Amino acid sequence: MNYEPLLQLFVDKPGEYVSGEVISQELGVSRTAIWKQIRKLEGAGYQFEASRRLGYRLLSIPDQLSVEALSSRLDAQTFGKTLHWFDTVESTQNLARAAAEEGAEEGTLFIAEQQVSGRGRMGRGWVSPRGKGVWMSMVLRPSVPIHFAPQLTLLTAVALCRSLKRLTSLPIGIKWPNDLLIDGKKISGILLESAAEDERLRYVIAGIGISVNLEQLDYPAELLDKATSLRISSGTKWDREDVIADFLKEWEQLYFLYQEQGFGLIITLWEALSVSLGKSVRLVTPQGEMVGVPIGLDDSGAIRIKLADGTIKPVFSAEMGEPL
Amino acid sequence: MNYEPLLQLFVDKPGEYVSGEVISQELGVSRTAIWKQIRKLEGAGYQFEASRRLGYRLLSIPDQLSVEALSSRLDAQTFGKTLHWFDTVESTQNLARAAAEEGAEEGTLFIAEQQVSGRGRMGRGWVSPRGKGVWMSMVLRPSVPIHFAPQLTLLTAVALCRSLKRLTSLPIGIKWPNDLLIDGKKISGILLESAAEDERLRYVIAGIGISVNLEQLDYPAELLDKATSLRISSGTKWDREDVIADFLKEWEQLYFLYQEQGFGLIITLWEALSVSLGKSVRLVTPQGEMVGVPIGLDDSGAIRIKLADGTIKPVFSAEMGEPL
Repeated sequence: MNYEPLLQLFVDKPGEYVSGEVISQELGVSRTAIWKQIRKLEGAGYQFEASRRLGYRLLSIPDQLSVEALSSRLDAQTFGKTLHWFDTVESTQNLARAAAEEGAEEGTLFIAEQQVSGRGRMGRGWVSPRGKGVWMSMVLRPSVPIHFAPQLTLLTAVALCRSLKRLTSLPIGIKWPNDLLIDGKKISGILLESAAEDERLRYVIAGIGISVNLEQLDYPAELLDKATSLRISSGTKWDREDVIADFLKEWEQLYFLYQEQGFGLIITLWEALSVSLGKSVRLVTPQGEMVGVPIGLDDSGAIRIKLADGTIKPVFSAEMGEPL
Repeated sequence: MNYEPLLQLFVDKPGEYVSGEVISQELGVSRTAIWKQIRKLEGAGYQFEASRRLGYRLLSIPDQLSVEALSSRLDAQTFGKTLHWFDTVESTQNLARAAAEEGAEEGTLFIAEQQVSGRGRMGRGWVSPRGKGVWMSMVLRPSVPIHFAPQLTLLTAVALCRSLKRLTSLPIGIKWPNDLLIDGKKISGILLESAAEDERLRYVIAGIGISVNLEQLDYPAELLDKATSLRISSGTKWDREDVIADFLKEWEQLYFLYQEQGFGLIITLWEALSVSLGKSVRLVTPQGEMVGVPIGLDDSGAIRIKLADGTIKPVFSAEMGEPL
């Protein structure tokens, strides 16, 4: 890998201090210019130790995905076959959408080290600091009509939950429709944006955010009781390439199985992983609030809510509260 | 209305010839410049008669919508309350979509005299010559989940069919899902483009093309046995402002009724107007071909097809052929 000249000086002497004088001579720049460059590298995730007497010492380089290594590990037919990696983007979702409008193929994947305007549901933001998570969006072109788009949301949650549980052995569950939780705290977000022409889906952009190696200090204070990461929950760092490769494989398998065999299998898997069933909750729907017990999914992907009077109502769209 | 100076000379003397000499003197331009301007006006739909001896005579000015007149006739609460009129656009659909992404309100309407790249279904074109039809797109923000988007397509076809039948008394019927036909020939096109985030519809762009006053010569030869217009079918010209005002009123009423009371009423109205029911047809679906008899709509908006073995299959998305 080629580093910029300043960084190369440190990489060449791992763990050693390099004095300001040496740097000045080697690069022909002032002490102030060196200090500014160090600050810039720190902003990009490099960590230095500074000593007035000894100079600077490189402590750690940021975790960065290798596209080559990742590509060679993906044995997917379609998912991630075309892979676009970026250091910093506004939002991978916007990039993927623009590509889909231009005709990008199914499986085209956009991954970024950090997003400066990561997007969550309902116009909310998404915390996506550099090198600490999986921030990616993929183009899907499913051959199902628009009625079935919500099924893809549930399918994606199932695939992500299964792959993360297998990899980390953490107690991860799905909150309806597609949030992944550990002990009630969110570790990932899934956002599917659909574009349809009459009943025909033109494309779906699946945005996936996985909080892999975020630490407490990466979250704003008000999110600390709502969000966690694989690292916070397990106490160890995880290889993001493992996370991506495992998930894409699982996701692709379920996706093609679903298109061949229908939604039945996904219902079974989703219900087995769900933490939303059997407990009374409040639901805020566009038509108003209700309280009831979610008991499962129906064939269309709606959640079946058992009301106090015993009737069962399918709910397509709602904000689901905590168990009462 | 203010015309450009050349046109004003003709408008001031209706039916009379204006000689090249007079025009030259009045406007201080050459004979060649006059000829070029006349050609330009002809391109914009004005018709002139030229006489070597007498000069030019204005025969007809193009049919042009008056935004003021139209707006004053619309008694809609929402539909068309904000109205953007254009002479020439690529496609009203693209304008409305861009506006929706920027936050345009429900009911914001884009109308053009002509579209140079009018869009139909499946990437097909749409013949939209100047001043001869209603070429428009409206922003909808329905409070229903994505499952129900196809119901809006059927609702729009019902509203358009009802309003055109009332206005023209022509025998107009609906071919599933949303084509309006007279004697098997298409007189309008409806294209609903949906943008959704998970199960939540962000917006729907409803594109409406109504072939009001097109003549045979406006169609390419290969469309003549498939397409007609109100004018061709009835032998008379129709006021486009009548067509628009009537339709918007009917459409808005059904739209709000549907959101209050559900899809049941729309099923009843659609089935009453349909020409697709009761006759054996071939359907090409993404999953393959089938032959069967459409017998009605189901609660989700799928068409129910009775197969040869008596089973009934809901079809969400297909190209439906002519009756066998």
